[in-house]
Amino acid sequence: MGPTVTETVTATKAGTTVPESEYKVADMSLAEFGRAELSIAEVEMPGLMALREEMGADKPLAGARVMGSLHMTVQTAVLIETLKELGADLRWCSCNIFSTQDHAAAAIVAAGTSVFAWKGETLEEYWWCTNRALSWADGGGPDLIVDDGGDATLLIHEGFKAEIAYAKDGTIPDPSSTDNAEFKLVLQTIKDGLPTDPKRWTKMVDRLVGVSEETTTGVHRLIERAREGSLLFPAINVNDCVTKSKFDNVYGCRHSLPDGIMRATDVMLAGKTVLICGYGDVGKGSAQAMKAAGARTLIAEVDPICALQACMEGFQVIPLADVIDQVDIVITTTGNKDIVMKDDMARMKNNAIIGNIGHFDNEIDMAGLENTPGIKKVEIKPQVHRFVFPDGHAVIVLAEGRLLNLGCATGHPSFVMSCSFTNQTLAQVELWKERTSGKYENNVYILPKVLDEKVARLHLGKLGAKLTELTSSQASYIGVKPEGPFKPESYRY
Amino acid sequence: MGPTVTETVTATKAGTTVPESEYKVADMSLAEFGRAELSIAEVEMPGLMALREEMGADKPLAGARVMGSLHMTVQTAVLIETLKELGADLRWCSCNIFSTQDHAAAAIVAAGTSVFAWKGETLEEYWWCTNRALSWADGGGPDLIVDDGGDATLLIHEGFKAEIAYAKDGTIPDPSSTDNAEFKLVLQTIKDGLPTDPKRWTKMVDRLVGVSEETTTGVHRLIERAREGSLLFPAINVNDCVTKSKFDNVYGCRHSLPDGIMRATDVMLAGKTVLICGYGDVGKGSAQAMKAAGARTLIAEVDPICALQACMEGFQVIPLADVIDQVDIVITTTGNKDIVMKDDMARMKNNAIIGNIGHFDNEIDMAGLENTPGIKKVEIKPQVHRFVFPDGHAVIVLAEGRLLNLGCATGHPSFVMSCSFTNQTLAQVELWKERTSGKYENNVYILPKVLDEKVARLHLGKLGAKLTELTSSQASYIGVKPEGPFKPESYRY
Amino acid sequence: MGPTVTETVTATKAGTTVPESEYKVADMSLAEFGRAELSIAEVEMPGLMALREEMGADKPLAGARVMGSLHMTVQTAVLIETLKELGADLRWCSCNIFSTQDHAAAAIVAAGTSVFAWKGETLEEYWWCTNRALSWADGGGPDLIVDDGGDATLLIHEGFKAEIAYAKDGTIPDPSSTDNAEFKLVLQTIKDGLPTDPKRWTKMVDRLVGVSEETTTGVHRLIERAREGSLLFPAINVNDCVTKSKFDNVYGCRHSLPDGIMRATDVMLAGKTVLICGYGDVGKGSAQAMKAAGARTLIAEVDPICALQACMEGFQVIPLADVIDQVDIVITTTGNKDIVMKDDMARMKNNAIIGNIGHFDNEIDMAGLENTPGIKKVEIKPQVHRFVFPDGHAVIVLAEGRLLNLGCATGHPSFVMSCSFTNQTLAQVELWKERTSGKYENNVYILPKVLDEKVARLHLGKLGAKLTELTSSQASYIGVKPEGPFKPESYRY
Amino acid sequence: MGPTVTETVTATKAGTTVPESEYKVADMSLAEFGRAELSIAEVEMPGLMALREEMGADKPLAGARVMGSLHMTVQTAVLIETLKELGADLRWCSCNIFSTQDHAAAAIVAAGTSVFAWKGETLEEYWWCTNRALSWADGGGPDLIVDDGGDATLLIHEGFKAEIAYAKDGTIPDPSSTDNAEFKLVLQTIKDGLPTDPKRWTKMVDRLVGVSEETTTGVHRLIERAREGSLLFPAINVNDCVTKSKFDNVYGCRHSLPDGIMRATDVMLAGKTVLICGYGDVGKGSAQAMKAAGARTLIAEVDPICALQACMEGFQVIPLADVIDQVDIVITTTGNKDIVMKDDMARMKNNAIIGNIGHFDNEIDMAGLENTPGIKKVEIKPQVHRFVFPDGHAVIVLAEGRLLNLGCATGHPSFVMSCSFTNQTLAQVELWKERTSGKYENNVYILPKVLDEKVARLHLGKLGAKLTELTSSQASYIGVKPEGPFKPESYRY
Repeated sequence: MGPTVTETVTATKAGTTVPESEYKVADMSLAEFGRAELSIAEVEMPGLMALREEMGADKPLAGARVMGSLHMTVQTAVLIETLKELGADLRWCSCNIFSTQDHAAAAIVAAGTSVFAWKGETLEEYWWCTNRALSWADGGGPDLIVDDGGDATLLIHEGFKAEIAYAKDGTIPDPSSTDNAEFKLVLQTIKDGLPTDPKRWTKMVDRLVGVSEETTTGVHRLIERAREGSLLFPAINVNDCVTKSKFDNVYGCRHSLPDGIMRATDVMLAGKTVLICGYGDVGKGSAQAMKAAGARTLIAEVDPICALQACMEGFQVIPLADVIDQVDIVITTTGNKDIVMKDDMARMKNNAIIGNIGHFDNEIDMAGLENTPGIKKVEIKPQVHRFVFPDGHAVIVLAEGRLLNLGCATGHPSFVMSCSFTNQTLAQVELWKERTSGKYENNVYILPKVLDEKVARLHLGKLGAKLTELTSSQASYIGVKPEGPFKPESYRY
Repeated sequence: MGPTVTETVTATKAGTTVPESEYKVADMSLAEFGRAELSIAEVEMPGLMALREEMGADKPLAGARVMGSLHMTVQTAVLIETLKELGADLRWCSCNIFSTQDHAAAAIVAAGTSVFAWKGETLEEYWWCTNRALSWADGGGPDLIVDDGGDATLLIHEGFKAEIAYAKDGTIPDPSSTDNAEFKLVLQTIKDGLPTDPKRWTKMVDRLVGVSEETTTGVHRLIERAREGSLLFPAINVNDCVTKSKFDNVYGCRHSLPDGIMRATDVMLAGKTVLICGYGDVGKGSAQAMKAAGARTLIAEVDPICALQACMEGFQVIPLADVIDQVDIVITTTGNKDIVMKDDMARMKNNAIIGNIGHFDNEIDMAGLENTPGIKKVEIKPQVHRFVFPDGHAVIVLAEGRLLNLGCATGHPSFVMSCSFTNQTLAQVELWKERTSGKYENNVYILPKVLDEKVARLHLGKLGAKLTELTSSQASYIGVKPEGPFKPESYRY
Repeated sequence: MGPTVTETVTATKAGTTVPESEYKVADMSLAEFGRAELSIAEVEMPGLMALREEMGADKPLAGARVMGSLHMTVQTAVLIETLKELGADLRWCSCNIFSTQDHAAAAIVAAGTSVFAWKGETLEEYWWCTNRALSWADGGGPDLIVDDGGDATLLIHEGFKAEIAYAKDGTIPDPSSTDNAEFKLVLQTIKDGLPTDPKRWTKMVDRLVGVSEETTTGVHRLIERAREGSLLFPAINVNDCVTKSKFDNVYGCRHSLPDGIMRATDVMLAGKTVLICGYGDVGKGSAQAMKAAGARTLIAEVDPICALQACMEGFQVIPLADVIDQVDIVITTTGNKDIVMKDDMARMKNNAIIGNIGHFDNEIDMAGLENTPGIKKVEIKPQVHRFVFPDGHAVIVLAEGRLLNLGCATGHPSFVMSCSFTNQTLAQVELWKERTSGKYENNVYILPKVLDEKVARLHLGKLGAKLTELTSSQASYIGVKPEGPFKPESYRY
Repeated sequence: MGPTVTETVTATKAGTTVPESEYKVADMSLAEFGRAELSIAEVEMPGLMALREEMGADKPLAGARVMGSLHMTVQTAVLIETLKELGADLRWCSCNIFSTQDHAAAAIVAAGTSVFAWKGETLEEYWWCTNRALSWADGGGPDLIVDDGGDATLLIHEGFKAEIAYAKDGTIPDPSSTDNAEFKLVLQTIKDGLPTDPKRWTKMVDRLVGVSEETTTGVHRLIERAREGSLLFPAINVNDCVTKSKFDNVYGCRHSLPDGIMRATDVMLAGKTVLICGYGDVGKGSAQAMKAAGARTLIAEVDPICALQACMEGFQVIPLADVIDQVDIVITTTGNKDIVMKDDMARMKNNAIIGNIGHFDNEIDMAGLENTPGIKKVEIKPQVHRFVFPDGHAVIVLAEGRLLNLGCATGHPSFVMSCSFTNQTLAQVELWKERTSGKYENNVYILPKVLDEKVARLHLGKLGAKLTELTSSQASYIGVKPEGPFKPESYRY
């Protein structure tokens, strides 16, 4: 009858092989905790672990420098280590000032990869991090980019454009030419670098093999560039993989929206009136979560097809203006701007909660709240603020208008991110494999359906799901191969 | 204080202007009842009624002969009268031997349109009806076809092929060349007509402007023909309109699957173990309905993406063979064949229920049941049979293996059919409008998204839904017009 | 390779041993169909079948005359045959003019039991049936009553009261003394019999051992009588068995409300706005069904606790008057009167649907509709009427304001009725067993919890459910016996 | 265009009027944060705030010393301040070693009330806190107790019993006489005090007016004492108020179970197989939450009625032993012991999660895990441990087997606790008001239904719910007063 040995997770205290100049994270002492959570996440991310097993020996990313601009969370850490196991040389930053999990960042640095990310960056720091993640120690840039929202891609395209203008007539980017606070910093970053290295971005573009993009917003930007003819390298649209957009966007948000609201406010969802703005994939998952929690859930939507889908699920479809004074919680999922404005918030119930799980912090009129004299900002705790109006009523804003599931909770859970990131990994391998074949031009591509099905297949076993198999006679009856792919490209799932 | 006047629905007893030779329905005395139900359905079908109002005066289908092969139900009757209001000259038959609602058929004949359909046709009668619906009184054929499952299209293509062979070398189709009972009748029908009019189908093809097809199965057949280059006229794929496939297939079945099981068997769904074979659109709606009714719901699926979706909704994914002896109800939704075989049914619980809501009667092994000595067939009531196995246990088969929602209940409800049929109407108008423009070749087309959105828009008001409108600034931010279309073609809803 | 033998269900065409004077049903030729449905229902009613097996040999009801006034459906037929198997001598009538299933009634008569019931009785016929079911061929009355709603009990109590008054001073009941149409008929029935047999009801009361009552309404009446001291025989309250009120009332209605609406109107429930009046057990099941079908569901409620429960499930709680012009469907479940009045219906949307699943036809103001000049009543089909108001808009009323699940569909499904009726059977056996013991006085009793648990236990196997067993240590830890009962009397489930 | 003034919540830094000897909390610097969260919770607790308004001026608890042993959370803080506003003099401790929210405790001390509680007490500290909370500065005890689980009541009863034994023959309690670690400490606590004050507990009992108890477990203990005749003072059973047991237990757990699992593990619930042990009120809420999150949810249950309810909601009912090797998550809600044993855990999947939301830490075999050589305990973070078995697989145990919603998240949300605590407040006021009337003997009482309905009523407005009112005619029809109470005592809701 001996005693149980209780021990804490062990990790090298000594730290990391990354030189101090080549990383910046909040607190390296969190590395052990990060590693402990990574070990749990690995069990929840069967797709990534399966790729390590399948491709680890072949190192299909050997020789590839991969830069990532994607929420530096525990799940991303498993992605990073998968890419590394496949041979990549990596540098990473976050794509959101609040989304880094500091223990995950520390664990990755401890294991030898350069990370520039911490929870609660200023905007200046954010763009500094992005810039640093793009610059290998030898001064060169990446071969491949993993982008989320398109900020890394934006910086490169703007840098490239500025260098052309500069070469032509010495034009220097003018940060004061824009009102957009973030774009100002993009221009400043480029401006600061121009004198030192006026060909830096041009060289980076020359080297770049391609980007794989994670989000609706980022893909939208890429498609616009491709349409204008200004896209500088091939792009793979990971967002529109079925196993991404119909999983991460829907089921990820269904999980992380209530998680974020609960951690931030501890408010009971049952019985509350909740307005979800937007009934796309993110809105569908969000609305389902609120309904499931016992909230009376309303939908605001501009697209009549999505609106009719909301009706069919029993949701009342109504514009925000008609109910803003009756709702307890408003969540934006639109991917658009100007959804909840300061004047809307002025009409809301006391302590009504406002959060964004769609896109940037301009879905909610943060600028209006911050810049109106007479509105007081009171911090309850980090990422949770009461904005008190002159009449004494207040609204509670989550994550300063940025993605509340990342700002107030830990983002999407590992399992659903494993689907998304398995697609990311396959996209990176594909781009690198075809780097000289000419298969990909400066356009936006999606992965073939057979890979999408593979990603799904890799995740079924963990859930105890067992597939039925087509007989050859059945396969021939519906005109497919017994092993798939099973559906035409236009199929909507 | 006078008495209430109670009166029954009035309709012309005198009947119809259609000559007796030009229709065949079960019972013309049902016309009044049919008209009463039509008047209720019209209120539930706002899309069709809106098109009557919008286009009724212009008669965009004036001069068009439209043949329909589509379940002759109350809802279809509202479609027929909409096409008529838009100017069409119509003939109709059903596309399923059990799906006709006899009162609807009678009401349409009473109002002056030729219908050849009744509930409970034999297969011989079915193909006779189809053939008759294709033959106008002057001997000519239709300009346009509304097809459901592709049987009208099949008959024309086979007729055309036979006439070419006959013209070449006098070959006559040989019904005994096939084991398929239905195809035998197709060949017999063509064979019987050949001597009389050896150019009938060729002339019909010459005249035909196009077909609009309602179902997954029918579209699948059309695409195969187009791929082989054998498609004889343009086709519009109505099935893949979002407002069809994501509404009718999903929400229609969610309504009509429990309706059919309840009317057929009165069995309590709560607590039962139900296996849904297939988790496509039909399967999704079916599974949601069974879960909502309190059944423990399991899914059998071959496609790993659909299987993973099922997992995310909490369904156990498992092959039929693993649970066939434990389930109380099995529903097939696959669009494939040989899903529940006689040997499976031999292992089922006593009085287990088997039904098909997917496709043809070969999803369930009806042939095996009917042709095995020792298995007794006992009719409980029409469309509900117990097949008693030699060991004394029985299975209850709905609608003789054909679509149970049509055979045992009244099919999909009016509102969701209004979405589908508004698309059908728009497709017919489009084909007729472009009949000489060359816009449509012998290929398969889908309607533009803007029409899909229009269909949705026409159905929102009835449900009290109110859309939000984009500001021009918001529209420009996401790169669309304020009035739509709002999504890229690849969007999955 | 012999052919399958197809045969219809066999039953003695010759009919029944019941003399023609001792039954009245719609159509004895339906007996075979009734027997076929009974054979299916038996498989779905494991509690009753288990009691047949457990007690059939002992005949615990031998010598007991049992009169039943309870919806003469297929499920009730299985109850009747169970009571018969246990030794009872039975006569039966329905407790609702629309609820009889004529094939079930015929099958029971064919098997030798007197039934007076058919679908669509007039009120006069209804009370005639009740009266006849109370009179055995020898002129005597029953020993035991199975009552549903308390009509048989009412007639006996009123008869007894009238006989006392008549004996005292020759007073004859005066039907014109009441405005209530039904009560008028009760008095008339008693008045008609008084001259012939002025001690009939007194003798009946003398003989009566007790009644078991099925419903909330009937129990309410019994408790009032007991409180006043006017109850003439013992009563067992079956309604408040957990396995009745929390099963039949909740899950039965969850099943049969959508079933009734669908069969009556074929209207799509998804997207509709439905107001459920009352959130008791029936209301809870009804609301859950409507929500599950995709309807936007609202609740009207007077009890703040039930209202708060509705809120916690995400329902909007709002009075009928506030939304009557916006709802598509209103369902009453209150057990109260005057819930939807004529003036409310005057404000409803065209073709709005109104139905009652709670109680009597006075939940809906049928009298107002029927007796107002200018409101026209149009029959769509039996039990489905449009009442057209002078302004042209109409409302659709189901089952003439009576229980729509019984009037428009087939009532609750077998499985849940098996729970209720197993309790009924146990109550009848208990009353008869204790008929001379003095255990039951003229009061209202409930069955002991251990029988309630037994009823549940008898229904688990059919659903494949497997109970966990308490260890004796666990049982002792929570202070119960390992085999139950497991909960205190006050437990609410 | 002035700047927004950003300020943090203000609170007196100076601290508190409570002498240092009369409180012990983790960190007084958290008081401001606690006050900020209290101000949010107050808006979510309308019942308590309404009582402050209704009774605050009258001070109905003036003169009453109230001791509380109930999770020292933000919500409890609002209860404490309500009791204080009503006149009470309070001392408080937590009833669970992990459930204190340190910022709430600090805020209460800062506002002048003695609290002895912090998150992560040892068992020794726990009983020290309880003992201290029972001892006013003058050495005397409380007039009233608010108990949760019955620990304060236990200590007093054991103390009283020991003093009688001691007075009789000098017997001293012997901690070594029990194997139960906690009971050992109870005896030790009493033993330590006996020499100093051998009449302390006797005097405390003399003074005590009564206790109001929050939980099923505590009520169970009280009823046992009352049955044995050993209860020393009156008790009000708050747990069995409908607005407590059917709200807090069901809806509270529905909220806080997923919250606790998410915060502890970030694991995706969708697709997982979850076994809920017990389908009582807590189990019902827990199962609903897991199903709503997309988990495949199974139930283990001993009571056949509850099991049949689970079946009716579509849950598979199956013993733990049959599925322990297939489930991803097991949650205990039974209120019993020995539910998940070490040998069960030995068979579970790697990283399977085990948590308790029912009762004490003996639902899960923590003793077996902690005391078996070869099982290693690894701390991922506080309240989240991996227990690694010799074969290398591990299970993740939440909150060391104690209530995971309190240990890993913040317990039930404010709104539902407002229902429970409004009942608590009414119970305290009732006990104090009737302290000399003899209304309450040493027995267990429940609050009258009219108060239960009042509690519900006070919570409707916040949710925008609007009650329907009975007309006097309707009230009389169903035999109630228009203002309630509306239901018989036996009604189950």
